[in-house]
Amino acid sequence: MRVRVDLKVEEMPKYWYNVLADLPFKLDPPLDPRTKQPISPQALSAIFPEALIEQEVSEKREIPIPEPVLREYAVFRPTPLYRATYLEEYLQTPARIYYKYEGASPTGSHKTNTALAQAYYNKISGTKRLVTETGAGQWGSALCYAGAKFGLTVNVFMVRISYEQKPMRKYLMKLFGGDVVPSPSDRTNFGRSLLEKNGDMPGSLGIAISEAIEVAVSDPGTKYSLGSVLNHVLLHQTVIGLEIKKQLALLNETPTIVLGCHGGGSNFAGTILPFVPDKLAGKNIRLIACEPTACPSLTKGRYEYDYGDTAGMTPLLKMYTLGKDFIPPKIHAGGLRYHGAAPIVSRLLKEGLIEAVAFDQEEVFNAARLFAKLEGIVPAPESSYAIYGAIKEALRAKEEKKEEVIVFNLSGHGLFDLIAYVS
Amino acid sequence: MRVRVDLKVEEMPKYWYNVLADLPFKLDPPLDPRTKQPISPQALSAIFPEALIEQEVSEKREIPIPEPVLREYAVFRPTPLYRATYLEEYLQTPARIYYKYEGASPTGSHKTNTALAQAYYNKISGTKRLVTETGAGQWGSALCYAGAKFGLTVNVFMVRISYEQKPMRKYLMKLFGGDVVPSPSDRTNFGRSLLEKNGDMPGSLGIAISEAIEVAVSDPGTKYSLGSVLNHVLLHQTVIGLEIKKQLALLNETPTIVLGCHGGGSNFAGTILPFVPDKLAGKNIRLIACEPTACPSLTKGRYEYDYGDTAGMTPLLKMYTLGKDFIPPKIHAGGLRYHGAAPIVSRLLKEGLIEAVAFDQEEVFNAARLFAKLEGIVPAPESSYAIYGAIKEALRAKEEKKEEVIVFNLSGHGLFDLIAYVS
Repeated sequence: MRVRVDLKVEEMPKYWYNVLADLPFKLDPPLDPRTKQPISPQALSAIFPEALIEQEVSEKREIPIPEPVLREYAVFRPTPLYRATYLEEYLQTPARIYYKYEGASPTGSHKTNTALAQAYYNKISGTKRLVTETGAGQWGSALCYAGAKFGLTVNVFMVRISYEQKPMRKYLMKLFGGDVVPSPSDRTNFGRSLLEKNGDMPGSLGIAISEAIEVAVSDPGTKYSLGSVLNHVLLHQTVIGLEIKKQLALLNETPTIVLGCHGGGSNFAGTILPFVPDKLAGKNIRLIACEPTACPSLTKGRYEYDYGDTAGMTPLLKMYTLGKDFIPPKIHAGGLRYHGAAPIVSRLLKEGLIEAVAFDQEEVFNAARLFAKLEGIVPAPESSYAIYGAIKEALRAKEEKKEEVIVFNLSGHGLFDLIAYVS
Repeated sequence: MRVRVDLKVEEMPKYWYNVLADLPFKLDPPLDPRTKQPISPQALSAIFPEALIEQEVSEKREIPIPEPVLREYAVFRPTPLYRATYLEEYLQTPARIYYKYEGASPTGSHKTNTALAQAYYNKISGTKRLVTETGAGQWGSALCYAGAKFGLTVNVFMVRISYEQKPMRKYLMKLFGGDVVPSPSDRTNFGRSLLEKNGDMPGSLGIAISEAIEVAVSDPGTKYSLGSVLNHVLLHQTVIGLEIKKQLALLNETPTIVLGCHGGGSNFAGTILPFVPDKLAGKNIRLIACEPTACPSLTKGRYEYDYGDTAGMTPLLKMYTLGKDFIPPKIHAGGLRYHGAAPIVSRLLKEGLIEAVAFDQEEVFNAARLFAKLEGIVPAPESSYAIYGAIKEALRAKEEKKEEVIVFNLSGHGLFDLIAYVS
């Protein structure tokens, strides 16, 4: 029979976990794109509110989740942890497989965890409007929802080709009062300059970021919001891993393998960072990032300073990168199409504290279809990389006749991506 | 803070509740369409398996849920009961509002509750293939999922206009291995005859039922499956109301108003039937069906024998009906566009044990948008009629300064209907 562990609302973590407090090394600082020197917090204040800049550099281990954010987390958190009973039986594996389900959030992915926090901190700092970019729309819809909750206007620059071909999340953003335009747009100098050259330009995440930043710096009441990569974004996502720890403890389970899919790093880090102290303490635990072979930042990238966007407007981050000009093929997992990786994740990989693997889309989608039929949840194309990783480990455990306790994060549902499953 | 009541898997009801055992009257029997005499169970065996025909006429109060069905219910059941804290605060009402959430099922609605049961009973009766009709696809996708679970081929005749305009649930059916064709189709004599007259015919539920029945009667290994109206379908849905009773008991709450939206009657009945004994015992409880003014079977229909389908191939049922030839306007809540009503629901209304109200689409959608922003769940257009009904009662309670305990069933999510919310 199904095992499902529900925490009570009162058991929700009251703080985010900051791994920087426990690491035996310091991260290389972000560099100012103009001077190539470490960027000052003040230089960031044109686009981010004070509280988030503080979190970006904080070394406090536990950062309290503000009461209004907790209240909004409680709309959908704690999220359930399932034992994949039906999948285990199918695989005939001695491994026990668990998954955390973040797809039950209001916009269908883990992105709301940081969207709500960012909207809150902006609101109390006097921000009137948030501006951001989105590809397929997971992040954009999360921020629109958060904006509706905290009374902020949200402008989203959505990559034009997604805006036209994937209308569902655009509707979701509009339902939550968001103002969504296809990028490149005529709202910015940069967008207009591109449209003049080519009115049909399909756009890219890099272009959309540039448009969003242009809007943010041009208006004091407007701030920019980012859905992954940065330390404070990963911090907010640790609520996932903290809940997993509590849920596994209720089952008296100790995980030996924890997996997440990896794009910019926020869901992966949110899942595994709370387990890093166990790894540092020498416990038997492997932390594995699963990425597409089509965009193999961690497995094929170089560890060096690079820009976060294509246009080169952002600070330079020390990370595994395929180069800011790398254009990933159009795989279904739009959320994993990022040339770089979070600096925290990159450094953990460099230090050997985590592992990274890359999978082909076809094998991943076969696993996703199987999972949907067995477990009754249609996974997001992105999350399916973690599913496939878990299945591979479960089959290895079977071959080696080894008991493993495998946990992965099912970061979102795939109901808006169904066509990818049947095409 | 949010209140959410999760039952443990072990607390899931082990039986369905059969209201016929407790009613102080007997239902009028279905009539054979040829003889207009009460139809014999044998006459039904061409399209339904024995076990379901037995359930259709059973007067046993508790009908055990078979172990394999319980095991599949456990994929998504027990479903959560939420207190609508955020909505209550917004309305500033003294009423306490709770909702059961059936949208967390694998295909996003309560329909899986009967689909799994019907697939199971067919499987053990030797059925190889199930055939059914679907409008927007809630029922069709639930049956395809259930077929995948129990190893049955599922053929779905999907109303052509929905097949073309609402592709998402078609993809969901295909993901679960279903064979979906637009109706009218060239697979049946009836379909071919219609296509000869008009190759572009948009189709209707009545035509799709006729095609499905034609296929079922033509092949001994094939049975027909219906997603609402009949006694056994309502029976399987009582798992909803039985869980609600347990969940409210954990909170020491006694409901004074229970609501559901009403189309054919399965979700409404599944929600309220377990409360009928309380009503019969004279307790202070109102059971309210919420239907669209555009298709007002219960509030404007006549209580008489009528056919279940447009072509007049099904047995005649004693029910509230707008007439089998009534074509409802194309409202967003496709699942509520049915000319008749379940015989059990109809008789309860006739006897004054339940109430029925009708709402306009516009007021309902405003309520649904509000609900999505406050409670973080995008409701199905159908379920939104229950939301609006609950809000109206909560506002009345406020005006009358009266404490009420309102419970409604949120029968499904609206993620495949988003365009309806922003158009």
